[in-house]
Amino acid sequence: MGIVTLLTDFGLRDEYVGVMKGVILSVDPNAVIVDITHEIPPQDVRSAAYLLPAYPSFFPAGTVHVAVVDPGVGSERAILAVKWRGRYFLAPDNGLLTFILDGVPEAIVRVENREYFLHPVSRTFHGRDIFAPVAARLSAGLPIENLGPCVPAGNAARLKIAKARRSPGGGVTGAVVSVDRFGNLITNIDAGRLDAVYRGSGMEAAALEICGRRIEGLNLSYEKAAEGDPLLIVGSRGCLEIAVCGGDAAKVFGAGPGTRVRLLPPDRS
Amino acid sequence: MGIVTLLTDFGLRDEYVGVMKGVILSVDPNAVIVDITHEIPPQDVRSAAYLLPAYPSFFPAGTVHVAVVDPGVGSERAILAVKWRGRYFLAPDNGLLTFILDGVPEAIVRVENREYFLHPVSRTFHGRDIFAPVAARLSAGLPIENLGPCVPAGNAARLKIAKARRSPGGGVTGAVVSVDRFGNLITNIDAGRLDAVYRGSGMEAAALEICGRRIEGLNLSYEKAAEGDPLLIVGSRGCLEIAVCGGDAAKVFGAGPGTRVRLLPPDRS
Amino acid sequence: MGIVTLLTDFGLRDEYVGVMKGVILSVDPNAVIVDITHEIPPQDVRSAAYLLPAYPSFFPAGTVHVAVVDPGVGSERAILAVKWRGRYFLAPDNGLLTFILDGVPEAIVRVENREYFLHPVSRTFHGRDIFAPVAARLSAGLPIENLGPCVPAGNAARLKIAKARRSPGGGVTGAVVSVDRFGNLITNIDAGRLDAVYRGSGMEAAALEICGRRIEGLNLSYEKAAEGDPLLIVGSRGCLEIAVCGGDAAKVFGAGPGTRVRLLPPDRS
Repeated sequence: MGIVTLLTDFGLRDEYVGVMKGVILSVDPNAVIVDITHEIPPQDVRSAAYLLPAYPSFFPAGTVHVAVVDPGVGSERAILAVKWRGRYFLAPDNGLLTFILDGVPEAIVRVENREYFLHPVSRTFHGRDIFAPVAARLSAGLPIENLGPCVPAGNAARLKIAKARRSPGGGVTGAVVSVDRFGNLITNIDAGRLDAVYRGSGMEAAALEICGRRIEGLNLSYEKAAEGDPLLIVGSRGCLEIAVCGGDAAKVFGAGPGTRVRLLPPDRS
Repeated sequence: MGIVTLLTDFGLRDEYVGVMKGVILSVDPNAVIVDITHEIPPQDVRSAAYLLPAYPSFFPAGTVHVAVVDPGVGSERAILAVKWRGRYFLAPDNGLLTFILDGVPEAIVRVENREYFLHPVSRTFHGRDIFAPVAARLSAGLPIENLGPCVPAGNAARLKIAKARRSPGGGVTGAVVSVDRFGNLITNIDAGRLDAVYRGSGMEAAALEICGRRIEGLNLSYEKAAEGDPLLIVGSRGCLEIAVCGGDAAKVFGAGPGTRVRLLPPDRS
Repeated sequence: MGIVTLLTDFGLRDEYVGVMKGVILSVDPNAVIVDITHEIPPQDVRSAAYLLPAYPSFFPAGTVHVAVVDPGVGSERAILAVKWRGRYFLAPDNGLLTFILDGVPEAIVRVENREYFLHPVSRTFHGRDIFAPVAARLSAGLPIENLGPCVPAGNAARLKIAKARRSPGGGVTGAVVSVDRFGNLITNIDAGRLDAVYRGSGMEAAALEICGRRIEGLNLSYEKAAEGDPLLIVGSRGCLEIAVCGGDAAKVFGAGPGTRVRLLPPDRS
């Protein structure tokens, strides 16, 4: 019994997701299909790339993670199958796999073996004609090598990712990379970097600037004394987040993906 | 094969629901997971509390119903496991279980046994670290008593619920408590109370006032002579609803949760 | 192991879809339930009718396709069970099945056998009381004839469907019938008709007028030279679509269901 997860920009209004599930179940009637989200903004490869590393480790080894945000469908762009930490990934070679590729995968294969496709293969809906049937084959146990030739990691498409970096005064300059449903602002500053800055001084010295405002201290949970207070917290993705107790930080700060943040050094006074 | 249902305010944009499903399937690969809704407004415990009793009786005995609307995640609030009419419930002890607790549960347990949690337990995402793995254990057959110590019903948190009440003239004063997708206004006046008021006079004597307007007679279905007519009906939750034939009663009346309604006595003329 | 798909206008905010799934799993614990969509606009039978033929062929034979958009619930309207190309369909007899009925079904049955219903049968939620339990019985192997008497195809309700038609000068006059999540405008002009018009001249002669603008040439994929360019393509439903590269054609053209389109004859110059 294999699990297939789906991440797309198809939305839930149309038949597209249902059609993919029909194809998967036609190939592997025992597949268990789990929706991650279909609400990626249309053709927003970058949003999907940031979301992709956030869930696979919570699924059993062998799970097949399909991600289809694919403005180049029908063009010459390749489709990649990747094995990483015992999980499988299927996605167009358009940068969607950026963070997975950074993780040094066990195998990267160009999906070319048309024997596993649904025919005739359209040039408008590879989710149905290639991703779904190939995912079902993988989940049913097909070796990834059967899908096509190996590809060197360096040949796969990657997005340019703005990384958080040490600033001259000892702090860190980063950015908001995602906003979740609650309006929490998820940054690219991970817990390790946070530790590095405040090791020795303690987390009460933590302070971050965003949109001209300063938030001080690191919280351990979303609860804080007063509703409406902004707070810093290490969120469920392991990165620093800006939240507002009982509120929506994205609205309060007028912030979103790309907004710069600055972690201040402990000895700033 | 156990069933786990999910009711949350997580929305469908982020990875949170998918992560919970991954954890459940990692613990119990045979679990069948059913989404009730993830569109509870963020942190709106009251909306979730009203929705929670509306579906469990339609699932088989043994089903585990998980409800996570949890503004106090990471604080000292407890998590409760409840057995009621052969079904299991997992929710934070914040009032979400109000109507279930009113139903005189067979067992109420404080979820404390960390053996069944996902480690390390975060203080920001108990849906992933506690609710999901514990639900999977219950659905796989773990006795509820293994989760922690029993709690007296009187110690569990309850919301203050405005109940419909008999008014001096013989009618009933109540309120809208939910609005569904069609704009139907669901009140806290149940079918038993309706019967009590009009027993003897017949349902053609029924009349309700809302927002300064009066609706007369009780309908048996949403169909009525003219499109746009408001109508009274006993809805699928067993309570009196105000609907508009082919329309949206919430918009027509400008009404929503909290709007007062008055059921008029039969001898009002 | 049977598959049941669901197409409704119930939305995802309320408990209605979850309740249907609970009833299905209570009757057939092995049923695999697949959501097609629950975002049909409330009571929009026409939208559902257009969507219904778009996915069943991608599911295995034996799948039960349930469609509930049912403004007449509780009235005298019938419920039909249809067998078509080895798949089963359950829907109210209100025109929702129009395109399936056009496909010459193997069997059409009026669902009347109350033995398979959930009792008491309400007059407000047949999705729960009739569609769900009957679907589960069909998916578990009940012969369709057991549900009730056969109905001649001519007696079933059909919507008036505007068909594309040959125009006097040799072109085709049609209309937009659906808009998908990406803003692609799906017309009622199918690939066969397109072939008929341009056979001999080649697809580079294709041209379509919509909202006073002309789009020339037929694309094979959504990719085209310049972002923002409108393009013609045969979409995943096998019909002519108007798309905008990297954009939203519905917004660009201000078009939607009902917008007329004109396919121009090849010798128009």
